[in-house]
Amino acid sequence: MDINKRRLRAGIVGGGTGAFIGSVHRIASELDGQSLVVAGAMSSDAEKARKSAEAWHLDRSYDSFEKMAQAEAARGDGIDFVIIATPNHMHFPVAKAFLEKGIHVVCDKPMTFTLKEAEDLVAMVEAKKTIFAVTYNYTGYPAVRQAREMVKRGEIGDIRRVMVEYLQDWLMEPLEKTGQKQAAWRVDPERAGISCCVGDIGTHCENLLAFITGLKVESVCADFSTFVAGRRLEDDATVLLRMEKGARGSLTCSQVSCGEGNNLNIRIYGTKAGLEWHQEEPNTLTVKPAGKAWENWYRGARYMGEEAKALTRTPLGHPEGYLEAFAALYKMVATDIRRVKSGEAPLGGYPTVRDGLRGIQFVVKTVESSKKGASWVDMPRG
Amino acid sequence: MDINKRRLRAGIVGGGTGAFIGSVHRIASELDGQSLVVAGAMSSDAEKARKSAEAWHLDRSYDSFEKMAQAEAARGDGIDFVIIATPNHMHFPVAKAFLEKGIHVVCDKPMTFTLKEAEDLVAMVEAKKTIFAVTYNYTGYPAVRQAREMVKRGEIGDIRRVMVEYLQDWLMEPLEKTGQKQAAWRVDPERAGISCCVGDIGTHCENLLAFITGLKVESVCADFSTFVAGRRLEDDATVLLRMEKGARGSLTCSQVSCGEGNNLNIRIYGTKAGLEWHQEEPNTLTVKPAGKAWENWYRGARYMGEEAKALTRTPLGHPEGYLEAFAALYKMVATDIRRVKSGEAPLGGYPTVRDGLRGIQFVVKTVESSKKGASWVDMPRG
Amino acid sequence: MDINKRRLRAGIVGGGTGAFIGSVHRIASELDGQSLVVAGAMSSDAEKARKSAEAWHLDRSYDSFEKMAQAEAARGDGIDFVIIATPNHMHFPVAKAFLEKGIHVVCDKPMTFTLKEAEDLVAMVEAKKTIFAVTYNYTGYPAVRQAREMVKRGEIGDIRRVMVEYLQDWLMEPLEKTGQKQAAWRVDPERAGISCCVGDIGTHCENLLAFITGLKVESVCADFSTFVAGRRLEDDATVLLRMEKGARGSLTCSQVSCGEGNNLNIRIYGTKAGLEWHQEEPNTLTVKPAGKAWENWYRGARYMGEEAKALTRTPLGHPEGYLEAFAALYKMVATDIRRVKSGEAPLGGYPTVRDGLRGIQFVVKTVESSKKGASWVDMPRG
Amino acid sequence: MDINKRRLRAGIVGGGTGAFIGSVHRIASELDGQSLVVAGAMSSDAEKARKSAEAWHLDRSYDSFEKMAQAEAARGDGIDFVIIATPNHMHFPVAKAFLEKGIHVVCDKPMTFTLKEAEDLVAMVEAKKTIFAVTYNYTGYPAVRQAREMVKRGEIGDIRRVMVEYLQDWLMEPLEKTGQKQAAWRVDPERAGISCCVGDIGTHCENLLAFITGLKVESVCADFSTFVAGRRLEDDATVLLRMEKGARGSLTCSQVSCGEGNNLNIRIYGTKAGLEWHQEEPNTLTVKPAGKAWENWYRGARYMGEEAKALTRTPLGHPEGYLEAFAALYKMVATDIRRVKSGEAPLGGYPTVRDGLRGIQFVVKTVESSKKGASWVDMPRG
Repeated sequence: MDINKRRLRAGIVGGGTGAFIGSVHRIASELDGQSLVVAGAMSSDAEKARKSAEAWHLDRSYDSFEKMAQAEAARGDGIDFVIIATPNHMHFPVAKAFLEKGIHVVCDKPMTFTLKEAEDLVAMVEAKKTIFAVTYNYTGYPAVRQAREMVKRGEIGDIRRVMVEYLQDWLMEPLEKTGQKQAAWRVDPERAGISCCVGDIGTHCENLLAFITGLKVESVCADFSTFVAGRRLEDDATVLLRMEKGARGSLTCSQVSCGEGNNLNIRIYGTKAGLEWHQEEPNTLTVKPAGKAWENWYRGARYMGEEAKALTRTPLGHPEGYLEAFAALYKMVATDIRRVKSGEAPLGGYPTVRDGLRGIQFVVKTVESSKKGASWVDMPRG
Repeated sequence: MDINKRRLRAGIVGGGTGAFIGSVHRIASELDGQSLVVAGAMSSDAEKARKSAEAWHLDRSYDSFEKMAQAEAARGDGIDFVIIATPNHMHFPVAKAFLEKGIHVVCDKPMTFTLKEAEDLVAMVEAKKTIFAVTYNYTGYPAVRQAREMVKRGEIGDIRRVMVEYLQDWLMEPLEKTGQKQAAWRVDPERAGISCCVGDIGTHCENLLAFITGLKVESVCADFSTFVAGRRLEDDATVLLRMEKGARGSLTCSQVSCGEGNNLNIRIYGTKAGLEWHQEEPNTLTVKPAGKAWENWYRGARYMGEEAKALTRTPLGHPEGYLEAFAALYKMVATDIRRVKSGEAPLGGYPTVRDGLRGIQFVVKTVESSKKGASWVDMPRG
Repeated sequence: MDINKRRLRAGIVGGGTGAFIGSVHRIASELDGQSLVVAGAMSSDAEKARKSAEAWHLDRSYDSFEKMAQAEAARGDGIDFVIIATPNHMHFPVAKAFLEKGIHVVCDKPMTFTLKEAEDLVAMVEAKKTIFAVTYNYTGYPAVRQAREMVKRGEIGDIRRVMVEYLQDWLMEPLEKTGQKQAAWRVDPERAGISCCVGDIGTHCENLLAFITGLKVESVCADFSTFVAGRRLEDDATVLLRMEKGARGSLTCSQVSCGEGNNLNIRIYGTKAGLEWHQEEPNTLTVKPAGKAWENWYRGARYMGEEAKALTRTPLGHPEGYLEAFAALYKMVATDIRRVKSGEAPLGGYPTVRDGLRGIQFVVKTVESSKKGASWVDMPRG
Repeated sequence: MDINKRRLRAGIVGGGTGAFIGSVHRIASELDGQSLVVAGAMSSDAEKARKSAEAWHLDRSYDSFEKMAQAEAARGDGIDFVIIATPNHMHFPVAKAFLEKGIHVVCDKPMTFTLKEAEDLVAMVEAKKTIFAVTYNYTGYPAVRQAREMVKRGEIGDIRRVMVEYLQDWLMEPLEKTGQKQAAWRVDPERAGISCCVGDIGTHCENLLAFITGLKVESVCADFSTFVAGRRLEDDATVLLRMEKGARGSLTCSQVSCGEGNNLNIRIYGTKAGLEWHQEEPNTLTVKPAGKAWENWYRGARYMGEEAKALTRTPLGHPEGYLEAFAALYKMVATDIRRVKSGEAPLGGYPTVRDGLRGIQFVVKTVESSKKGASWVDMPRG
């Protein structure tokens, strides 16, 4: 059937029962009615994979992602794209397996386990011209899009100061010792990589900051802490930032800040106005114009810009949340998959493999800074 | 296929392109992976119906709800339930057509055009033992469930004062004269019934109040206003309330309150604590215990009650919104349809045909009070 | 000494140790450096009066207000004005005693015990041309002044809906039975008059509403409740309002709303914009212009109007509070006393004896409505 | 007259007409009825000094602080203490002049122009046993006192992360070039010293942090910026902090953050709870206990601790602000002056000469860090 006359078919790797992020991907990919998850290799444990697929009423369940890539590529009604929702160390091999079959990819962040893998992925994706999205999901919030549009239009002026924070408390106790699965791999260098807190949530901050401001980080001075005894990776970090065009500021991420859930927030101060946005109350963007009253711009309002409107489903005052923002990425990805399959150029709008690479570089450089006693380290150019 | 091993199949009447509420029902019914909308009679205009169905990639499109009821009931893979998203005056005939075929119903509010129809529906549903839910969707918010649970457990004490408000501004200008379709029928007695503002949003207030407090309104004194010249129905109302067990307070609804989107909020004051909740920031329930600091109870937190948790998808700090609350009703309806089809007793938890009737009675009695110059009128007992 | 070259001298009647409002008047009258409290008849108990005066380092203490009026009028350096901070039933005799000596008066609210007294006071003040201010202190907040200015300039358009509330919980238990002095007289018809809650805080609402909107209440429908058993006056009331020029709305006051301190707030909706202000966070005025982002206007900012600026002492972001607002009235009173003593016409700006009368009328008419089973009663014209 | 039976007499140096901070000191010193400002050397310009004193109805005006120290010390009814409200570079000579006469001192911050002066002042004050307070006024807020009490009692647990910020925008344009007097000296190294932003507001952050946590900063890594061209001192800084007992975090101060007034806020995260307080809404302290709902502790409530209560004048819901917090320091100073003059030991409770010294050290060390390219520098021990 014409790809424009049907829902896209998605497969998922990882995200089996118990993994919160699996459901998020399913809901987000289906929410706008553009896709349906029909196949999965949801766990490396075959029995768990089968049961997870059954719970979701999937048509097809696989024991391994390799078999899934093979089989789906061979079917006439195989999946149009794959969702990667595994722990970090599996992102690369899974992405590679599907990309080699020409299957488009939506990959969770951080994009890869190592910098080398990230660079390889960039090369692979750019050679294949496949759609590859990294779920830096906070970029899907309409208020975030609005912020970016205001920066672009020059309404904020030249950016001077930036402040971005992501505070949680879920690792404030040694949760990894209780058998909690997600905690176990997040603090384990074998599965999470060289960083826990920066890799998990600091990269969201870096991405959000770059997305809104259009500025790259040039140098970092990162003070890492490990507050919970026995942990091998950092659970808290403050990073001084020097950005392009002279902007300065800080990036703070913490998984041990008592009482915090997912307190991601960003403040940007320019020569004409300031901006403030809080993920926990994401429908409002606060604008602070020089010499005027503060304004609360509300998602869903008529005065919002085109991009924010395009990613809005409910009217002003009927709040949208995390799942809707996540779904916004999938909506844009679905559009691009349809376009590519119809021979049209993709439109983008979602975080790409290049954003994924930038995230990995940020992790690498902050780790390096921290190891040098929190001294300044330059980010790669370009 | 075993109904427990597949997604339920839903059909929709109304909700064609341009009607905001149609998409809301589709997203909400599918969000938890329990149902898929597969068929529709989405407009009384055949061409529009076809195009709307196509935009949603539905399997089957019908010219009329009668044909749809007929055809779906006859198919082996026909719909399990129907969603009614038409203007008010069509709710009853559509519901009747599907109920007669034994098809379960999810109906938008206010439930019917007249009190008679509401009473007939109660009789029909109770005779047929079909599942019938009315989408008083605000009852689907976890924080609202939490509030109800706290009242039930006696943590608020005896309720003294209640205040519920729903403020909008979308009808502050004569929008109905611009051709805006939704405005046109809302202010038209032929399609909306005897009330505009109370019928549309005042009933949400009444339902939310009864849901949380477990108390019924006993008498009303309703002051209706029509601020926009030429309008035949009220666009604003304040209603004094006398409730069961001596509780007193007010219900305010307005569609002409400049700057307001969907500012539905409720405050309840008991002998032990007060409660406050705002739909526009729905993830927080504020509790005001006597002589202690105010508390913000957050959706997704471990300390929330069982019912709130059951309707929660994302962790603390990843906000859920309007669509998720709406979806909560569909999730409970899906459970009950599966149960009924498997010979089990339904569990309920969503607003029923009885709640729908109560809403219509509230409209009738406030209109009566208003016509008597805002004097006191008793609600029906029981 | 030239009255313009020295601080004014104030005396106080009532407000002895233990009475919160006494200190408030002292601080407020002195805060802007225009007056000093130098004499007092601070209690009807002579010993307590003496000790209270000593605690404040007053120059002169009296056993009775009659002696004080006599003696101060006779001195060359006698007081310029008297502050009345007694329970309600004493307001009139005290005011009369000082007015007869030509001493200016600042009187707490409600202005008198009976309507007759209020009318007599109006006559007396207007005949004598003395300065007479009633401490409806919430009118002293800069943000409230700003709201009034915006209404006057037409920036809000025609007012449609008004909502004013004052919620407390200090009388939610039978505090009067514990010996708490202030509670004892507030609920006692012999000292408080015909109303507790409306007289104490409902009149603040009525005054604030009239002050900002410039509109008078035309009719009321008041539902009074007494939630605490054995109490002879109401401790809670909701009042439907019909105002001049077709505005409608409600006034709610309660002293039994668990968890509330002094939650006075007001919302006004016009054809061009809405306004919202909360006394507990008084530095911000929220403006809701039609079709635009909400604005938070901040006390102390350069963009505020002249009247707000004139009553502002600290820059934006250094909050002012209750005492500063109270002091604003005293500042304007001091200016007018200086003017009158210098033969100039007073400028006003603070609530007058006419506002005091209006408050008493409001109490009388809401009590009447309540006694008629919450039916509509007209306010006096003019 | 017995010092306990009269108001204390205060003199002021600086604070002449146009200087916002002069009025603040006058109001704050008089607010609680403990002191009266009676004498002044309010400007180095004799005419301006005279007019400023007249505007305040002072009894005595002087041409110079030296004459004032001399004359007041000689009078039987001379001032009990002096208030220093001049630019920074004059703090030390003025303080010295009055201390030498045995007159107690309340001095604005930063305490001195140089570290040497600060050290000399410590020696002088400690030798003389005079009362010497530095107006780190934010420590006067009841909610801040409450925070400190909770930390002391162990209710927050071991402190891990601290975040303190003070954001303004008043220097975002080159205001110093417009003739604005305060801006002119703040950015001038001859009058402000080696730092603008950190000296002016960063020291408030350092003091507030130390006050609440009881922890000292051990090392700093300070990234200074000068965003306004031509300025010789920094107008923005972010400082990484390493504190005693392993606490980590950041201190941010900025005078170029568009739209900000006096956005001083602090967050503290311990092993048992988090704390958050905002100076712009100072009546609320947010407490975030592990695994429980967030709590808003409200100034004026019965549940507040003793120290917070002692500095509270109005009941819950009647907000106090900046002036009241400032006045709290003066209230404690007055108590101690009375005690010292009566031969009793002072009680303290306000920032002392030692806190003043610590503030200067903080300035010196952050400047040093900044000059070394934002590298780590240790603070002096002890």
